[in-house]
Amino acid sequence: MSPAPQIQSTTPLMQTRLFAVEAVELLFANGEARTFERLVGQGEGAVMVVPVLSPDRLLLIREYAVGVERYELGFVKGRIDRGESPEQAARRELREEIGMDARRLDKLETVALTPAYSNYRTHLFVARELFPAPLVGDEPEPLELVQWPVSALADLRKEPNFTDARSLLATYLFEERAGL
Amino acid sequence: MSPAPQIQSTTPLMQTRLFAVEAVELLFANGEARTFERLVGQGEGAVMVVPVLSPDRLLLIREYAVGVERYELGFVKGRIDRGESPEQAARRELREEIGMDARRLDKLETVALTPAYSNYRTHLFVARELFPAPLVGDEPEPLELVQWPVSALADLRKEPNFTDARSLLATYLFEERAGL
Repeated sequence: MSPAPQIQSTTPLMQTRLFAVEAVELLFANGEARTFERLVGQGEGAVMVVPVLSPDRLLLIREYAVGVERYELGFVKGRIDRGESPEQAARRELREEIGMDARRLDKLETVALTPAYSNYRTHLFVARELFPAPLVGDEPEPLELVQWPVSALADLRKEPNFTDARSLLATYLFEERAGL
Repeated sequence: MSPAPQIQSTTPLMQTRLFAVEAVELLFANGEARTFERLVGQGEGAVMVVPVLSPDRLLLIREYAVGVERYELGFVKGRIDRGESPEQAARRELREEIGMDARRLDKLETVALTPAYSNYRTHLFVARELFPAPLVGDEPEPLELVQWPVSALADLRKEPNFTDARSLLATYLFEERAGL
């Protein structure tokens, strides 16, 4: 493996409420210099939680996703607020989105989305032994909750509106570690 | 399912070489109005390709990822250039990154990364029956190629620098459809 390139400078390029972009000047070990752009300042990242409603049933959410301009089927998810741990964010999102907290919250994985362009990470969890604990969130409309049989995850993966790479990955991780 | 919210307006907020952000004013079916931000103009999206070197061996790349500031292990990947189909981009990236083209290129899946914030998509492929066909890419340094036994994909998933959600997902899709 080559020695890591050295960061010569970083320059803020733009900033909005949610997004910030900076230019990074890199000097590679072989003398090559490049300027790359990357997203920064996206806070602590995000959480995604697979809620297990009963041993044979998961809970999904159907929510409008403005990036793709349609309703997407997926698991509970959201950004980690400042000062929150990933576990705290996972419980808050569970309470806001499905009105329940969990007696068991197990970490599945922490994943990157586009390591070449961002340090944004998503912490994946599975939530079991749910109990009612609603918390009012900031959703613009009530979320549609969808129960899904654990035995039909292969069908879920074929749903045309179930396309988030993290949601798809979560179904495999859940199956693999169902005995957690 | 609610009727989809109506887009009242979109306003460009900023633009750099790689990234553009816009504000979207939405009116939900229940009368709630919200302004969201999303990334736009990221071209045709990206491709990721799992190169199968022999029936029991995959080829990985170790490449510096400035978003996370370290070398990441992953599959062949890159942006789709203007005018290219996903298949053409997959073959070009194979030739640039591992110096080979493929007699068989099968689509695994098309996935979203953050449907709430972007319409960026990645087309996942598996490439078989490789043959030498090098093409000079724009990599700042030679990429390190790493052979990995198909029988050890579970170990690959535990590698601390193998964290891209798409790469992790690709290992499960590859295993599931090994008989494609």
